[in-house]
Amino acid sequence: MSYSEFPSRLLENAVNEFASLPGVGRKTAFKLVMNLLRRNADDVKRFGESIIKLHGEIHYCKTCHNISDTEICNICSDDKRDRSVVCVVESIQDVMAIENTRQFKGIYHVLGGIISPIEGIGPADLRIDSLEEKVRTGCISEVIFALSTTMEGDTTNYYLFKKLNKYNVTLTTLARGVAIGDELEYTDEITLGRAINNRNPYQQ
Amino acid sequence: MSYSEFPSRLLENAVNEFASLPGVGRKTAFKLVMNLLRRNADDVKRFGESIIKLHGEIHYCKTCHNISDTEICNICSDDKRDRSVVCVVESIQDVMAIENTRQFKGIYHVLGGIISPIEGIGPADLRIDSLEEKVRTGCISEVIFALSTTMEGDTTNYYLFKKLNKYNVTLTTLARGVAIGDELEYTDEITLGRAINNRNPYQQ
Repeated sequence: MSYSEFPSRLLENAVNEFASLPGVGRKTAFKLVMNLLRRNADDVKRFGESIIKLHGEIHYCKTCHNISDTEICNICSDDKRDRSVVCVVESIQDVMAIENTRQFKGIYHVLGGIISPIEGIGPADLRIDSLEEKVRTGCISEVIFALSTTMEGDTTNYYLFKKLNKYNVTLTTLARGVAIGDELEYTDEITLGRAINNRNPYQQ
Repeated sequence: MSYSEFPSRLLENAVNEFASLPGVGRKTAFKLVMNLLRRNADDVKRFGESIIKLHGEIHYCKTCHNISDTEICNICSDDKRDRSVVCVVESIQDVMAIENTRQFKGIYHVLGGIISPIEGIGPADLRIDSLEEKVRTGCISEVIFALSTTMEGDTTNYYLFKKLNKYNVTLTTLARGVAIGDELEYTDEITLGRAINNRNPYQQ
Protein backbone atom coordinates (compact mmCIF):
# COMPACT_ATOMS: atom_id res chain seq x y z
CA MET A 1 0.00 0.00 0.00
CA SER A 2 1.37 3.37 -0.95
CA TYR A 3 0.27 6.62 0.65
CA SER A 4 0.51 8.77 -2.42
CA GLU A 5 -2.98 10.23 -2.17
CA PHE A 6 -4.44 11.40 1.09
CA PRO A 7 -8.12 12.12 1.59
CA SER A 8 -7.18 15.14 3.70
CA ARG A 9 -4.45 17.75 3.40
CA LEU A 10 -4.33 18.14 7.20
CA LEU A 11 -3.78 14.41 7.57
CA GLU A 12 -1.05 14.52 4.95
CA ASN A 13 0.67 17.44 6.70
CA ALA A 14 0.75 15.57 9.99
CA VAL A 15 2.06 12.41 8.30
CA ASN A 16 4.77 14.44 6.53
CA GLU A 17 5.86 15.99 9.83
CA PHE A 18 6.14 12.62 11.56
CA ALA A 19 7.92 11.13 8.55
CA SER A 20 10.56 13.88 8.87
CA LEU A 21 11.70 12.36 12.17
CA PRO A 22 14.78 10.10 12.05
CA GLY A 23 13.94 6.42 11.64
CA VAL A 24 10.26 7.07 10.93
CA GLY A 25 9.09 6.09 7.45
CA ARG A 26 5.84 7.21 5.82
CA LYS A 27 4.06 4.00 6.75
CA THR A 28 5.00 4.32 10.42
CA ALA A 29 4.19 8.05 10.35
CA PHE A 30 0.73 7.22 9.04
CA LYS A 31 0.17 4.67 11.81
CA LEU A 32 1.23 7.17 14.46
CA VAL A 33 -1.10 9.85 13.09
CA MET A 34 -3.98 7.37 12.92
CA ASN A 35 -3.31 6.53 16.56
CA LEU A 36 -3.51 10.25 17.44
CA LEU A 37 -6.76 10.57 15.47
CA ARG A 38 -8.35 7.90 17.62
CA ARG A 39 -7.53 9.77 20.83
CA ASN A 40 -9.69 12.46 22.37
CA ALA A 41 -9.16 16.12 21.54
CA ASP A 42 -7.50 17.06 24.85
CA ASP A 43 -4.85 14.35 24.52
CA VAL A 44 -3.99 15.44 21.00
CA LYS A 45 -3.86 19.12 21.97
CA ARG A 46 -1.54 18.33 24.88
CA PHE A 47 0.70 16.33 22.53
CA GLY A 48 0.95 19.17 20.05
CA GLU A 49 1.52 21.79 22.74
CA SER A 50 4.28 19.76 24.37
CA ILE A 51 6.13 19.99 21.05
CA ILE A 52 5.51 23.70 20.54
CA LYS A 53 6.70 24.43 24.08
CA LEU A 54 10.01 22.70 23.30
CA HIS A 55 11.18 25.80 21.51
CA GLY A 56 9.02 28.42 23.11
CA GLU A 57 9.70 27.74 26.75
CA ILE A 58 12.76 25.55 27.21
CA HIS A 59 15.91 27.37 28.34
CA TYR A 60 19.55 26.48 28.14
CA CYS A 61 21.50 27.04 31.35
CA LYS A 62 23.57 30.21 31.05
CA THR A 63 26.46 28.59 32.89
CA CYS A 64 26.75 25.04 31.55
CA HIS A 65 24.46 25.17 28.44
CA ASN A 66 22.51 22.17 29.71
CA ILE A 67 18.79 22.13 28.94
CA SER A 68 16.72 23.62 31.74
CA ASP A 69 13.33 25.06 32.66
CA THR A 70 15.09 27.97 34.38
CA GLU A 71 17.92 30.33 33.46
CA ILE A 72 20.40 28.43 35.62
CA CYS A 73 19.93 24.64 35.67
CA ASN A 74 19.33 22.53 38.76
CA ILE A 75 22.88 21.20 38.76
CA CYS A 76 24.60 24.58 38.50
CA SER A 77 22.34 26.09 41.17
CA ASP A 78 22.85 23.16 43.58
CA ASP A 79 25.01 24.26 46.52
CA LYS A 80 26.07 20.68 47.24
CA ARG A 81 27.89 20.30 43.90
CA ASP A 82 31.63 20.91 43.71
CA ARG A 83 32.04 23.89 41.38
CA SER A 84 35.80 23.43 41.10
CA VAL A 85 35.43 20.29 38.95
CA VAL A 86 33.96 20.74 35.45
CA CYS A 87 33.02 17.75 33.29
CA VAL A 88 33.07 18.63 29.59
CA VAL A 89 30.49 16.66 27.54
CA GLU A 90 29.17 16.75 24.02
CA SER A 91 25.42 16.83 24.65
CA ILE A 92 22.73 16.90 27.29
CA GLN A 93 22.23 13.15 26.78
CA ASP A 94 25.77 12.71 28.13
CA VAL A 95 24.92 14.86 31.17
CA MET A 96 21.95 12.57 31.83
CA ALA A 97 24.06 9.44 31.34
CA ILE A 98 26.68 10.62 33.84
CA GLU A 99 24.03 11.88 36.29
CA ASN A 100 22.40 8.45 36.20
CA THR A 101 25.64 6.90 37.51
CA ARG A 102 25.34 9.13 40.65
CA GLN A 103 29.16 9.08 40.81
CA PHE A 104 29.93 12.66 39.80
CA LYS A 105 29.44 15.55 42.19
CA GLY A 106 30.93 18.38 40.14
CA ILE A 107 29.32 20.55 37.46
CA TYR A 108 29.12 20.20 33.66
CA HIS A 109 29.92 22.11 30.51
CA VAL A 110 27.95 21.07 27.43
CA LEU A 111 29.91 21.75 24.23
CA GLY A 112 26.93 21.20 21.94
CA GLY A 113 28.86 18.83 19.67
CA ILE A 114 32.40 17.75 18.87
CA ILE A 115 34.87 18.91 16.25
CA SER A 116 34.06 17.04 13.04
CA PRO A 117 35.58 18.30 9.77
CA ILE A 118 33.44 15.79 7.83
CA GLU A 119 30.22 17.31 9.18
CA GLY A 120 31.66 20.81 8.93
CA ILE A 121 31.70 21.38 12.70
CA GLY A 122 34.69 23.47 13.77
CA PRO A 123 35.77 24.78 17.19
CA ALA A 124 33.88 28.04 16.55
CA ASP A 125 30.59 26.10 16.39
CA LEU A 126 31.08 24.73 19.89
CA ARG A 127 30.85 26.42 23.28
CA ILE A 128 34.60 26.35 23.83
CA ASP A 129 35.13 30.08 24.43
CA SER A 130 32.80 30.13 27.42
CA LEU A 131 34.62 27.08 28.81
CA GLU A 132 37.98 28.84 28.47
CA GLU A 133 36.50 31.96 30.06
CA LYS A 134 35.25 29.84 32.96
CA VAL A 135 38.70 28.29 33.46
CA ARG A 136 40.48 31.65 33.10
CA THR A 137 38.35 33.59 35.54
CA GLY A 138 36.83 31.02 37.88
CA CYS A 139 38.27 28.94 40.65
CA ILE A 140 38.26 25.69 38.70
CA SER A 141 40.81 23.07 39.73
CA GLU A 142 39.98 20.23 37.31
CA VAL A 143 38.47 19.85 33.85
CA ILE A 144 37.39 16.32 32.89
CA PHE A 145 37.16 15.59 29.16
CA ALA A 146 34.21 13.18 28.91
CA LEU A 147 33.88 12.95 25.14
CA SER A 148 33.30 9.95 22.86
CA THR A 149 36.28 7.67 22.19
CA THR A 150 36.10 8.39 18.47
CA MET A 151 38.52 10.25 16.21
CA GLU A 152 36.31 13.32 16.54
CA GLY A 153 36.30 12.99 20.31
CA ASP A 154 40.09 12.64 20.40
CA THR A 155 40.49 15.66 18.10
CA THR A 156 38.27 17.74 20.37
CA ASN A 157 40.16 16.53 23.45
CA TYR A 158 43.43 17.61 21.85
CA TYR A 159 42.03 21.02 20.88
CA LEU A 160 40.71 21.60 24.40
CA PHE A 161 44.03 20.46 25.88
CA LYS A 162 45.90 23.02 23.74
CA LYS A 163 43.46 25.76 24.79
CA LEU A 164 43.39 25.04 28.51
CA ASN A 165 46.88 23.72 29.20
CA LYS A 166 48.26 27.19 29.79
CA TYR A 167 46.01 27.71 32.80
CA ASN A 168 46.62 26.35 36.27
CA VAL A 169 44.12 23.50 36.02
CA THR A 170 44.28 19.70 36.05
CA LEU A 171 43.09 18.17 32.77
CA THR A 172 41.79 14.58 32.92
CA THR A 173 39.86 12.17 30.71
CA LEU A 174 37.51 9.30 31.54
CA ALA A 175 39.27 6.01 32.27
CA ARG A 176 39.53 3.76 29.22
CA GLY A 177 39.41 0.02 29.78
CA VAL A 178 37.52 -3.20 29.40
CA ALA A 179 33.78 -2.59 29.92
CA ILE A 180 31.93 -4.48 32.65
CA GLY A 181 30.65 -7.75 31.20
CA ASP A 182 33.01 -7.72 28.21
CA GLU A 183 35.07 -10.79 27.36
CA LEU A 184 38.81 -10.20 26.85
CA GLU A 185 38.84 -12.35 23.72
CA TYR A 186 36.53 -9.94 21.92
CA THR A 187 37.91 -6.67 23.27
CA ASP A 188 39.69 -4.60 20.60
CA GLU A 189 43.48 -4.31 20.96
CA ILE A 190 43.62 -0.56 21.59
CA THR A 191 41.17 -0.78 24.50
CA LEU A 192 42.97 -3.86 25.87
CA GLY A 193 46.36 -2.17 25.47
CA ARG A 194 45.18 0.88 27.41
CA ALA A 195 43.60 -1.33 30.05
CA ILE A 196 46.96 -3.07 30.62
CA ASN A 197 48.93 0.17 30.75
CA ASN A 198 46.44 1.84 33.09
CA ARG A 199 46.04 -1.19 35.36
CA ASN A 200 44.83 -0.53 38.91
CA PRO A 201 45.70 -2.16 42.25
CA TYR A 202 43.46 -5.16 42.90
CA GLN A 203 40.70 -4.39 45.38
CA GLN A 204 39.11 -7.12 47.45
CA MET B 1 21.27 4.51 30.03
CA SER B 2 17.97 5.15 31.76
CA TYR B 3 15.97 8.32 31.37
CA SER B 4 14.64 8.45 34.87
CA GLU B 5 15.69 12.01 35.61
CA PHE B 6 15.24 14.78 33.11
CA PRO B 7 16.93 18.16 33.41
CA SER B 8 13.71 19.80 32.20
CA ARG B 9 10.05 19.10 32.89
CA LEU B 10 9.10 20.38 29.42
CA LEU B 11 11.55 17.96 27.83
CA GLU B 12 10.15 15.14 29.95
CA ASN B 13 6.57 16.01 28.93
CA ALA B 14 7.45 15.88 25.24
CA VAL B 15 9.29 12.56 25.69
CA ASN B 16 6.30 11.12 27.58
CA GLU B 17 3.94 12.16 24.78
CA PHE B 18 6.08 10.56 22.08
CA ALA B 19 6.55 7.43 24.20
CA SER B 20 2.75 7.08 24.33
CA LEU B 21 2.70 6.32 20.60
CA PRO B 22 2.52 2.65 19.58
CA GLY B 23 5.92 1.08 18.97
CA VAL B 24 7.83 4.05 20.38
CA GLY B 25 9.84 3.34 23.53
CA ARG B 26 11.25 5.96 25.88
CA LYS B 27 14.69 5.77 24.30
CA THR B 28 13.30 6.36 20.80
CA ALA B 29 10.97 9.08 22.11
CA PHE B 30 13.97 10.86 23.62
CA LYS B 31 15.86 10.69 20.33
CA LEU B 32 12.89 12.09 18.42
CA VAL B 33 12.52 14.98 20.88
CA MET B 34 16.25 15.73 20.71
CA ASN B 35 15.91 15.84 16.92
CA LEU B 36 13.08 18.37 17.25
CA LEU B 37 15.14 20.44 19.69
CA ARG B 38 17.89 20.79 17.10
CA ARG B 39 15.48 22.21 14.51
CA ASN B 40 14.54 25.85 14.19
CA ALA B 41 11.53 27.29 16.02
CA ASP B 42 9.29 27.55 12.94
CA ASP B 43 9.73 23.87 12.04
CA VAL B 44 8.88 22.76 15.55
CA LYS B 45 5.85 25.06 15.72
CA ARG B 46 4.58 23.71 12.40
CA PHE B 47 5.04 20.15 13.68
CA GLY B 48 3.07 20.83 16.84
CA GLU B 49 0.32 22.70 15.03
CA SER B 50 -0.10 19.92 12.46
CA ILE B 51 -0.94 17.63 15.39
CA ILE B 52 -3.31 20.06 17.08
CA LYS B 53 -5.14 20.64 13.79
CA LEU B 54 -5.78 16.89 13.52
CA HIS B 55 -8.62 17.21 15.97
CA GLY B 56 -9.49 20.84 15.58
CA GLU B 57 -9.94 21.05 11.84
CA ILE B 58 -10.24 17.60 10.29
CA HIS B 59 -13.77 16.60 9.31
CA TYR B 60 -15.35 13.25 8.70
CA CYS B 61 -17.46 13.07 5.55
CA LYS B 62 -21.16 13.23 6.48
CA THR B 63 -22.01 10.67 3.82
CA CYS B 64 -19.30 8.01 3.97
CA HIS B 65 -17.50 8.88 7.27
CA ASN B 66 -14.16 9.02 5.48
CA ILE B 67 -11.65 11.60 6.74
CA SER B 68 -11.90 14.88 4.87
CA ASP B 69 -11.01 18.57 4.95
CA THR B 70 -14.58 19.43 3.97
CA GLU B 71 -18.06 18.34 5.11
CA ILE B 72 -18.46 16.03 2.12
CA CYS B 73 -15.28 14.24 1.02
CA ASN B 74 -13.73 14.44 -2.45
CA ILE B 75 -14.95 10.97 -3.38
CA CYS B 76 -18.59 11.50 -2.39
CA SER B 77 -18.70 14.92 -4.10
CA ASP B 78 -17.11 13.60 -7.31
CA ASP B 79 -19.74 13.48 -10.09
CA LYS B 80 -17.77 10.86 -12.00
CA ARG B 81 -18.16 8.24 -9.25
CA ASP B 82 -20.94 5.69 -9.47
CA ARG B 83 -23.16 6.36 -6.44
CA SER B 84 -25.14 3.16 -6.89
CA VAL B 85 -22.20 0.99 -5.76
CA VAL B 86 -21.12 1.29 -2.11
CA CYS B 87 -17.94 -0.37 -0.84
CA VAL B 88 -18.10 -1.05 2.92
CA VAL B 89 -14.69 -0.86 4.63
CA GLU B 90 -13.42 -0.89 8.18
CA SER B 91 -11.21 2.21 8.18
CA ILE B 92 -9.94 5.13 6.12
CA GLN B 93 -6.70 3.19 5.53
CA ASP B 94 -8.79 0.67 3.60
CA VAL B 95 -10.32 3.47 1.51
CA MET B 96 -6.81 4.63 0.65
CA ALA B 97 -5.67 1.08 -0.15
CA ILE B 98 -8.58 0.53 -2.56
CA GLU B 99 -8.23 4.02 -4.07
CA ASN B 100 -4.58 3.26 -4.79
CA THR B 101 -5.61 0.32 -6.98
CA ARG B 102 -7.56 2.78 -9.22
CA GLN B 103 -9.97 -0.10 -9.96
CA PHE B 104 -13.03 1.07 -8.04
CA LYS B 105 -15.28 3.84 -9.33
CA GLY B 106 -18.08 3.67 -6.77
CA ILE B 107 -18.33 5.31 -3.34
CA TYR B 108 -17.39 4.11 0.16
CA HIS B 109 -18.91 3.62 3.58
CA VAL B 110 -16.42 3.57 6.47
CA LEU B 111 -17.73 1.48 9.38
CA GLY B 112 -15.11 2.72 11.83
CA GLY B 113 -14.19 -0.80 12.97
CA ILE B 114 -15.49 -4.37 12.85
CA ILE B 115 -17.55 -6.39 15.28
CA SER B 116 -15.17 -7.85 17.86
CA PRO B 117 -16.61 -9.29 21.09
CA ILE B 118 -13.07 -9.71 22.48
CA GLU B 119 -12.39 -5.98 22.16
CA GLY B 120 -15.93 -5.14 23.21
CA ILE B 121 -16.93 -3.69 19.86
CA GLY B 122 -20.56 -4.43 19.01
CA PRO B 123 -22.75 -3.44 16.04
CA ALA B 124 -23.94 -0.34 17.91
CA ASP B 125 -20.36 1.01 17.99
CA LEU B 126 -20.14 0.94 14.20
CA ARG B 127 -21.76 3.13 11.57
CA ILE B 128 -24.16 0.42 10.44
CA ASP B 129 -27.42 2.34 10.93
CA SER B 130 -26.40 5.06 8.48
CA LEU B 131 -25.42 2.35 5.98
CA GLU B 132 -28.84 0.70 6.32
CA GLU B 133 -30.50 4.12 5.98
CA LYS B 134 -28.50 4.74 2.81
CA VAL B 135 -29.57 1.39 1.35
CA ARG B 136 -33.22 1.85 2.42
CA THR B 137 -33.66 5.37 1.06
CA GLY B 138 -31.09 5.73 -1.69
CA CYS B 139 -30.81 4.31 -5.16
CA ILE B 140 -28.06 1.84 -4.30
CA SER B 141 -27.84 -1.27 -6.45
CA GLU B 142 -24.79 -3.02 -4.93
CA VAL B 143 -23.07 -3.15 -1.56
CA ILE B 144 -19.56 -4.64 -1.55
CA PHE B 145 -18.32 -6.03 1.78
CA ALA B 146 -14.59 -5.25 1.73
CA LEU B 147 -13.64 -6.29 5.27
CA SER B 148 -10.70 -8.26 6.60
CA THR B 149 -10.73 -12.03 6.07
CA THR B 150 -10.63 -12.64 9.82
CA MET B 151 -13.23 -14.11 12.13
CA GLU B 152 -14.25 -10.56 13.10
CA GLY B 153 -14.54 -9.59 9.45
CA ASP B 154 -16.67 -12.65 8.67
CA THR B 155 -18.89 -11.94 11.69
CA THR B 156 -19.42 -8.36 10.53
CA ASN B 157 -20.11 -9.54 6.98
CA TYR B 158 -22.79 -11.90 8.29
CA TYR B 159 -24.35 -9.18 10.46
CA LEU B 160 -24.46 -6.77 7.51
CA PHE B 161 -25.90 -9.48 5.28
CA LYS B 162 -28.72 -10.10 7.77
CA LYS B 163 -29.43 -6.35 7.99
CA LEU B 164 -29.36 -5.57 4.27
CA ASN B 165 -30.65 -8.77 2.70
CA LYS B 166 -34.28 -7.63 2.97
CA TYR B 167 -33.66 -4.69 0.66
CA ASN B 168 -33.51 -4.88 -3.12
CA VAL B 169 -29.72 -4.68 -3.35
CA THR B 170 -26.92 -6.98 -4.56
CA LEU B 171 -24.53 -7.94 -1.76
CA THR B 172 -21.00 -8.96 -2.79
CA THR B 173 -17.63 -9.55 -1.14
CA LEU B 174 -14.09 -9.19 -2.42
CA ALA B 175 -12.79 -12.18 -4.37
CA ARG B 176 -10.81 -14.61 -2.21
CA GLY B 177 -7.98 -16.48 -3.83
CA VAL B 178 -4.26 -16.99 -4.14
CA ALA B 179 -2.46 -13.64 -3.88
CA ILE B 180 -0.22 -12.47 -6.75
CA GLY B 181 3.31 -13.78 -6.14
CA ASP B 182 2.20 -16.47 -3.67
CA GLU B 183 3.39 -20.05 -4.07
CA LEU B 184 0.67 -22.71 -4.01
CA GLU B 185 2.74 -24.90 -1.71
CA TYR B 186 2.59 -22.30 1.06
CA THR B 187 -0.98 -21.09 0.53
CA ASP B 188 -3.29 -22.07 3.39
CA GLU B 189 -5.93 -24.69 2.61
CA ILE B 190 -8.99 -22.47 3.11
CA THR B 191 -7.70 -19.87 0.64
CA LEU B 192 -6.66 -22.57 -1.82
CA GLY B 193 -10.03 -24.31 -1.43
CA ARG B 194 -11.91 -21.10 -2.19
CA ALA B 195 -9.60 -20.35 -5.10
CA ILE B 196 -10.45 -23.72 -6.67
CA ASN B 197 -14.20 -23.33 -6.09
CA ASN B 198 -14.24 -19.78 -7.44
CA ARG B 199 -11.99 -20.50 -10.43
CA ASN B 200 -12.24 -18.14 -13.41
CA PRO B 201 -12.03 -18.75 -17.19
CA TYR B 202 -8.40 -18.56 -18.33
CA GLN B 203 -7.62 -15.25 -20.02
CA GLN B 204 -4.79 -14.97 -22.53
